[in-house]
Amino acid sequence: MRITIIGLGLIGGSAALAWKEASKEGRFLSSELTITAVDTNPETLDLALELGVADRVTPSIAEGVADADVVLVAVPVLAMGSVMKEVDAAAPVNAVVTDAGSVRSSVITAVRLNVRHERLRHYVPLHPIAGAEKAGLRYATATLYTGATGVVTPLPESDLEDVALVAKLWTLAGLKVVEMTPEEHDRVYAMVSHVPHMIAFALMQMASQSPESETALAAAGGGFRDTTRVAAADARMWADITRGNRQAILDGISRFEAALTHLKGMVAADDYEGYYNYFERTANARRKMTQHLPPVQPTTK
Amino acid sequence: MRITIIGLGLIGGSAALAWKEASKEGRFLSSELTITAVDTNPETLDLALELGVADRVTPSIAEGVADADVVLVAVPVLAMGSVMKEVDAAAPVNAVVTDAGSVRSSVITAVRLNVRHERLRHYVPLHPIAGAEKAGLRYATATLYTGATGVVTPLPESDLEDVALVAKLWTLAGLKVVEMTPEEHDRVYAMVSHVPHMIAFALMQMASQSPESETALAAAGGGFRDTTRVAAADARMWADITRGNRQAILDGISRFEAALTHLKGMVAADDYEGYYNYFERTANARRKMTQHLPPVQPTTK
Repeated sequence: MRITIIGLGLIGGSAALAWKEASKEGRFLSSELTITAVDTNPETLDLALELGVADRVTPSIAEGVADADVVLVAVPVLAMGSVMKEVDAAAPVNAVVTDAGSVRSSVITAVRLNVRHERLRHYVPLHPIAGAEKAGLRYATATLYTGATGVVTPLPESDLEDVALVAKLWTLAGLKVVEMTPEEHDRVYAMVSHVPHMIAFALMQMASQSPESETALAAAGGGFRDTTRVAAADARMWADITRGNRQAILDGISRFEAALTHLKGMVAADDYEGYYNYFERTANARRKMTQHLPPVQPTTK
Repeated sequence: MRITIIGLGLIGGSAALAWKEASKEGRFLSSELTITAVDTNPETLDLALELGVADRVTPSIAEGVADADVVLVAVPVLAMGSVMKEVDAAAPVNAVVTDAGSVRSSVITAVRLNVRHERLRHYVPLHPIAGAEKAGLRYATATLYTGATGVVTPLPESDLEDVALVAKLWTLAGLKVVEMTPEEHDRVYAMVSHVPHMIAFALMQMASQSPESETALAAAGGGFRDTTRVAAADARMWADITRGNRQAILDGISRFEAALTHLKGMVAADDYEGYYNYFERTANARRKMTQHLPPVQPTTK
């Protein structure tokens, strides 16, 4: 099988490493696996060869996808439309195309606008729920996806065999794959990922703009470390995600604001039983979900 | 040296274990160390003897402090006043008394109202910035405080030698001790601990009260795990802290709301450069502070 990965960052690079590992252990779908990496950054391509992430590298999408069986597009979500247009023009007609974008509806709309209708039959979007506050190929690992969730959001046009193939590839990389509609995916990830990021950015903004910030940040402990960890994320990637899922994010922020306003009102009124019950209820909800969460990676702070 | 610990939970228990360890290794302040544990829960006292956390145990404050050189009060912050009254009545006149409360101004006020004026000379509050979403003696470890910060907030009446002794004891337990005024402490920890907890509780409330909560929580990843980890904290302890530092928490929530409203306005207007710059600025602030943060403990999710 020939897999071409366009955009060799943390996501694409970790997938390549996981598939290489599976192939080495004889667990892969076919006996041969050739990975071609396409990236606009020549240093990334050099690093890909050096780390053994890819067998072939090229800066040209047309050249990279010319003989591909599978194309994984792992570029920023706002670049998806124009990259897909180039893929469509050059990839074999039966190549299975998937993308790893963090938002769905806007990416699918961009793909529909940029590829020929026949291409949609072999297009299967799947969002791997993994990442880190560190972006880039040098942080890629074969175990990034172990135990994490992947959300496949087939189009009405998607060929069922292709859906199964894309799900199988990501399962081999370590994901547990679940299926959602694109709209459900965007509402759900606004709630559990995009809005939590907005909150972490705002919390970091608040804590770093006070006359006492220097003292405060020097004296912060583990609670602050964890609640703000994702605020160190890549700003360009998150600006793209924000634009790509804007309405669901705005709705989620409003729902969060309502929850905080309710709590603040009880604190202002010193309604001890009220805020105690609020803490108790949410603490129980948090404890109950622990079993579903991915394991803590030996990560940086 | 005879140290009496009142309230043998995660905080008091971990201090006892760290001091025992220092004593065993010949690093303690005196050649002999006797730890007396006072707790209202007989099972906790049995466990303290079983784990070797304490040499003597008693449910009676009066009995426990009668021959103490140092008394560490590690009870919920709203119980501090009444416990200090009993300590004052029974402890030797020169015993050094410290408490590990997470809020300062209201605790110091409660202590002032409940002890004789002479006692204040030997009273030195010090807040160890450590804890976990798990409370209780069975989670205590000798390394809980390693690399964490401790904030000492002396009173104008505090004897300087006693301040030095309390700081030295906690340094032996692993803390880096810094000094603040009680008011500064309360504003700073509202900002980097108490408000982040309120936000985590509200985020968990938002995510668990939607028609899609079950799907969403089952599909959440590492970002949600970390931003909400502290929402699993002990509700009673956090209700006490909320009451004890209410005004600074309300001020902090308002400042956070302003930061989030600013971001939300840019998202609503789709001001891409605006929110990109906001993310970039806060991400840089978060990356810069990493060096100050305590190491990630091999914790539960």
